[in-house]
Amino acid sequence: MKKSTAILLLHCPDRVGIIMEMTKFITDNQGNILYLDQSVDQIDHRFFMRVEWDLENFLIPKEKIAEYIDTLYARRYEMKFMLKFSAERPRMAIFVSKMSHCLYDLLARWKAGELDVEIPCIVSNHEDLRYVAEQFGLPYYVFSINKDWSNKREVEEAEMKLLKEHGVTFIVLARYMQIISDDMIAAYPNHIINIHHSFLPAFVGAKPYHQAYERGVKIIGATSHYVTAELDAGPIIEQDVIRITHKDTPETLVLKGKDLEKIVLSRAVKAHIDRKVLAYKNRTIIFS
Amino acid sequence: MKKSTAILLLHCPDRVGIIMEMTKFITDNQGNILYLDQSVDQIDHRFFMRVEWDLENFLIPKEKIAEYIDTLYARRYEMKFMLKFSAERPRMAIFVSKMSHCLYDLLARWKAGELDVEIPCIVSNHEDLRYVAEQFGLPYYVFSINKDWSNKREVEEAEMKLLKEHGVTFIVLARYMQIISDDMIAAYPNHIINIHHSFLPAFVGAKPYHQAYERGVKIIGATSHYVTAELDAGPIIEQDVIRITHKDTPETLVLKGKDLEKIVLSRAVKAHIDRKVLAYKNRTIIFS
Amino acid sequence: MKKSTAILLLHCPDRVGIIMEMTKFITDNQGNILYLDQSVDQIDHRFFMRVEWDLENFLIPKEKIAEYIDTLYARRYEMKFMLKFSAERPRMAIFVSKMSHCLYDLLARWKAGELDVEIPCIVSNHEDLRYVAEQFGLPYYVFSINKDWSNKREVEEAEMKLLKEHGVTFIVLARYMQIISDDMIAAYPNHIINIHHSFLPAFVGAKPYHQAYERGVKIIGATSHYVTAELDAGPIIEQDVIRITHKDTPETLVLKGKDLEKIVLSRAVKAHIDRKVLAYKNRTIIFS
Amino acid sequence: MKKSTAILLLHCPDRVGIIMEMTKFITDNQGNILYLDQSVDQIDHRFFMRVEWDLENFLIPKEKIAEYIDTLYARRYEMKFMLKFSAERPRMAIFVSKMSHCLYDLLARWKAGELDVEIPCIVSNHEDLRYVAEQFGLPYYVFSINKDWSNKREVEEAEMKLLKEHGVTFIVLARYMQIISDDMIAAYPNHIINIHHSFLPAFVGAKPYHQAYERGVKIIGATSHYVTAELDAGPIIEQDVIRITHKDTPETLVLKGKDLEKIVLSRAVKAHIDRKVLAYKNRTIIFS
Repeated sequence: MKKSTAILLLHCPDRVGIIMEMTKFITDNQGNILYLDQSVDQIDHRFFMRVEWDLENFLIPKEKIAEYIDTLYARRYEMKFMLKFSAERPRMAIFVSKMSHCLYDLLARWKAGELDVEIPCIVSNHEDLRYVAEQFGLPYYVFSINKDWSNKREVEEAEMKLLKEHGVTFIVLARYMQIISDDMIAAYPNHIINIHHSFLPAFVGAKPYHQAYERGVKIIGATSHYVTAELDAGPIIEQDVIRITHKDTPETLVLKGKDLEKIVLSRAVKAHIDRKVLAYKNRTIIFS
Repeated sequence: MKKSTAILLLHCPDRVGIIMEMTKFITDNQGNILYLDQSVDQIDHRFFMRVEWDLENFLIPKEKIAEYIDTLYARRYEMKFMLKFSAERPRMAIFVSKMSHCLYDLLARWKAGELDVEIPCIVSNHEDLRYVAEQFGLPYYVFSINKDWSNKREVEEAEMKLLKEHGVTFIVLARYMQIISDDMIAAYPNHIINIHHSFLPAFVGAKPYHQAYERGVKIIGATSHYVTAELDAGPIIEQDVIRITHKDTPETLVLKGKDLEKIVLSRAVKAHIDRKVLAYKNRTIIFS
Repeated sequence: MKKSTAILLLHCPDRVGIIMEMTKFITDNQGNILYLDQSVDQIDHRFFMRVEWDLENFLIPKEKIAEYIDTLYARRYEMKFMLKFSAERPRMAIFVSKMSHCLYDLLARWKAGELDVEIPCIVSNHEDLRYVAEQFGLPYYVFSINKDWSNKREVEEAEMKLLKEHGVTFIVLARYMQIISDDMIAAYPNHIINIHHSFLPAFVGAKPYHQAYERGVKIIGATSHYVTAELDAGPIIEQDVIRITHKDTPETLVLKGKDLEKIVLSRAVKAHIDRKVLAYKNRTIIFS
Repeated sequence: MKKSTAILLLHCPDRVGIIMEMTKFITDNQGNILYLDQSVDQIDHRFFMRVEWDLENFLIPKEKIAEYIDTLYARRYEMKFMLKFSAERPRMAIFVSKMSHCLYDLLARWKAGELDVEIPCIVSNHEDLRYVAEQFGLPYYVFSINKDWSNKREVEEAEMKLLKEHGVTFIVLARYMQIISDDMIAAYPNHIINIHHSFLPAFVGAKPYHQAYERGVKIIGATSHYVTAELDAGPIIEQDVIRITHKDTPETLVLKGKDLEKIVLSRAVKAHIDRKVLAYKNRTIIFS
């Protein structure tokens, strides 16, 4: 059986002795450390750490741990931290439009047990991919948005209500071709993951493969990032690229890009589910 | 001994029978075709071709070939073509500032016989790299540009005069940290090769590694392109990338990027010297 | 509607004029050439070509084309050729064992219209992946092979019979963990595509990720190749790699490798379906 | 001015509290930790760590530190450790034969200040590259080995004597085309760095590019490793690869491979100089 663990992600101004203190806190209370990775931002003099420990013999009750960390360390070290428990699986909503490749890739991994996550619902602005949801026995909700966006606000309110009912903890935009409003972004800060089909910051916005073709680049990419209020400008979680040639057309770029998109998005989603991502300023620390 | 060959690069509207006609022209006149590569732009319906043949038994005199091609084919097919001869080695001027990595990489390859080129001169706005030129026994000219650019025009005129005296046929900007004026660009259209230390079109302009750090990208790149009037926007010849992590600082990005820059620039320069690059619109066809 | 085309793949000793002759043959008979790519092996002095043309106004009846090519060119040029028609979709059998990632990747692409192929059956030595076949409404046949291989011959005969009944034209081993016998290989020469989970020729045989871990490599790979009598030694169609670190275990290598495997296999399968692969000696020419 | 630092590389069976103990040891003695990276081998349950601290106010005298670590920790934790000081620059001998690309790459970096190393001598079995040594003002020693290897032993003794006189601390084989004898390997355990021009373990031994061509691979590589008694089988420090096509010949593979070789070798050499490599069993831990 999988161990019940606590996962602590933190960052604070870099000071001597923080690793020592935090590992002492865990081991003194009989927590067996299973994972530790840390990193220092040499420019901002900021310290980042991810530590995971077995809760089996841990002396502090699970529901008290955050309080203790807050009292004992967070204030002293001006620390920001997140405490997660392996027993609490994240609940992921997937938003899609008409292209199936990212959705299939996520669901195939989930079915194969690679993603430790619940998928309470799939949301779309189109009926097109209902059959995929049905193949996997998942509920599929369609919210049609008018061309003139006249119902955008009420649609998003209905979506938010649905997400709440389903206890959704984070959202994946798997080639969802709709702008997310600031309200929804604010409700899920650094918890909406998008895949943009370019090597950001190149080719922001619409039709990046056509932009890439016009510019004559020799390499194309895909970028997965947290959604922030500014379009395609949030903290980047993962990127990858593929070499192309002058023989490629926008159509072959779209095909080649699909492979990048699904792999890059799924890697980012897995890192998020495994609590290995820490967003700081507009960057991410990805623990190994 | 190396064979004396003719190299024909051409493009024209795509029409049936062009390959057939051109190869027939060469073989009918007893030219032995050593290389043929072609490509069709499916969007613009444009045909691109590079063909190289042995001149040994070719019936048409070398100095008449261009005329024949022009008369027989170029007008009929609305064709643009360049005719080059392997016996006429290109003459390359290298422009540098203070960083030596691209210069060393070019000169080491040249010394090893990898680049079939003459290097009549190295030009700089600083004294710093004179020792490298001296190591390789090459003339080094310094043209100091005032901070306020007050002598920019007369400096460029002196440079152009020098290039002319040395019979320079193309220019390589090997991390030359000066803007080239429109006059010089106009004098060497698609014959000035620059290396930009980013994955263009991301991070145009100054300090791209710092921009990359700020944006939090997970991959950095380098781009070699022909210089046009618009900054960092000319036809791309070659690009490459390297994966980075959140542990990188602008300083380590600079170090990692140097490896990319020199390899990407040298590949582009070699393709140009070997007459394997055809610029069309703002793209390049790179023949294999 | 998709055009009805003929696709000719050929190779022969390199001689002047073959492109000219073949393109003349097609255009003289009013075939509109849609694609032409050629390549010369400079070591073996061998010429390779792929040409595709529209059959709409072609003067030679479809069923006579092969005969004409054979009579007019194949004998004269000692040419080997394959003639295919876009109207005749290949029929692909997929063999699987217990891992679903390659199967899902192929089926998701097929469902999205990326693979121009029929899938008459999925074959396995285990029940495990029946649910995937059912999700996509495809027949799934299980042939159990005894641990001592005592029924290996009769199982393969049954499989061959099934493949024949279903008109299967080529086989994809999508992480099928069984050796294919020489008889079956002989029945489908260069028509069985395997994915091996290493960067061949490194780590032939069983448990390549464990071998990679033991050897301490810094990069792992996957290789798709045609199956020949010698294990993991057939002509390579496609390979790709990913960087790893000392922190990886055999388990994380397996996870990272799965991404490579499915992409590499699917690319190879697509190239085969699109008739863009020509096997010669133990190598492949992949037309662009 | 560069700080005077101590660098401790260690490995031992993984046990709770080692990071805590070691960092406490350093900070209690007023050492300011500048760098800390650690890693756990989850298979062998082994702990690896690199820590670097400022010696300025460190209470333990430099020459006593090793003794203290040995007494206080190494025995208790069954720890193996190396203690290095930034003030003691490694002394690198470069062995070459006839190809200049790796040598130029190393010397150009050294000249640009990228490699914190002394280069007391360049050693060769041929006169060919003396001019490169002279360009950089470095002593160049030629030791001719007879075709029948009759003087192999006495040559290596002379070389070892030379290395000793020059205080050489590690050796780089920069495309040195001679087998190193077991005696010399034993004298420099994990201190001889080789570049092999293939993606090891594929294509061990002679003419790997020809082997790669014959096998028809789609990607070639280069591998830098520590030399051990078994040919091309020592711990790998760095690898990289490049995509090739069916159009490549052994000759173009050699050209493309040279770019890989020099970059891969120089990265490995830099990691070694910076004391970021720890060899364990037949693998390496590369600290970030």
